[in-house]
Amino acid sequence: MAALEFWFEFASTYSYPAAERIVPLAAARGVDLVWRPFLLGPIFAAQGWTDSPFNLYPAKGAYMWRDLERTCAARGIGWKMPSAFPRNGLTGARVALAAAQQPWIADFVRAVYRANFVEDREIGWEEVIAEILASVGQDADVWVERASAPENKSGLREQTSQAQERGIFGAPSFTVGDELFWGDDRLEAALLHASGGS
Amino acid sequence: MAALEFWFEFASTYSYPAAERIVPLAAARGVDLVWRPFLLGPIFAAQGWTDSPFNLYPAKGAYMWRDLERTCAARGIGWKMPSAFPRNGLTGARVALAAAQQPWIADFVRAVYRANFVEDREIGWEEVIAEILASVGQDADVWVERASAPENKSGLREQTSQAQERGIFGAPSFTVGDELFWGDDRLEAALLHASGGS
Repeated sequence: MAALEFWFEFASTYSYPAAERIVPLAAARGVDLVWRPFLLGPIFAAQGWTDSPFNLYPAKGAYMWRDLERTCAARGIGWKMPSAFPRNGLTGARVALAAAQQPWIADFVRAVYRANFVEDREIGWEEVIAEILASVGQDADVWVERASAPENKSGLREQTSQAQERGIFGAPSFTVGDELFWGDDRLEAALLHASGGS
Repeated sequence: MAALEFWFEFASTYSYPAAERIVPLAAARGVDLVWRPFLLGPIFAAQGWTDSPFNLYPAKGAYMWRDLERTCAARGIGWKMPSAFPRNGLTGARVALAAAQQPWIADFVRAVYRANFVEDREIGWEEVIAEILASVGQDADVWVERASAPENKSGLREQTSQAQERGIFGAPSFTVGDELFWGDDRLEAALLHASGGS
């Protein structure tokens, strides 16, 4: 039984429905989760993109918003078109990296995605991340300070480099050993692989 | 009950597994299929791409080949890495447009995809398309002539323009009225929508 590494970026639209369902699906297969926040910005920049491809390619973007709305409706999860996209996931990602092994990491990650894609809040603001930390029962000052420590900042840069080295080009991505799966709709296949199926 | 329009391009990798399963899945839901060959080249060109995005963005391309191999294995359908990509789907698409309402259209379409992605044959060559026509019991000379008639050539250009106007940016795509679904992994959702589900 291999662990499944969940590579997510808080700006990423399809990472939201994945974050909503990954914990129960992994538990049902007995697969351990490793939480791997990273940043898409440097990876997109390496491909020559200075914005989300959903903004750079309008037809693809228009489709994504409609598809995401349908997906959320079909799954019975909340959805509200964000008034800004993409939002800056940096502060959230730093907190998620610092707290990756905390028992409340899943709650925090889901709360950030809901803030972005259900509540239309500006997750790029440190005070919003602080409010989310408080909402999951944590001391916001402590975690914001840990998140902004130099070694944690460099740790996030390192994790983003690792993502790129492992062939990751979008989010959500899932890795099981060397095997890469991309997109919310590959979560089941990734979990099947992690649990020893094919 | 609405019809499902299947927009496909013979160069498109993920259109192959979709073509392999669309007929029985549509029949199971009682959904009528409309076969809509089109060309991705002009649509990609409008986005500034002069090659497949899988070639332009190597990380995405490497992932796609592995993901497609896994998908074919999981579904028990053939797969062989093509020695050339993307192949020119023009002649095949012209034949498919001319024959879109023939009872053998599904067999022809599947045979072209298998030639490309299982048999590693050069589907851009007219003689390969002629051999495929013969293999599905048709008079190749008759259909190659119909395919190359001026009104059929302009019909394919028109169909590609229609695809673009309908927001299509990749293949396979499925439309049900104004609703667009993109990718082999959205086929079930498209069929559910066509059969009156949500």
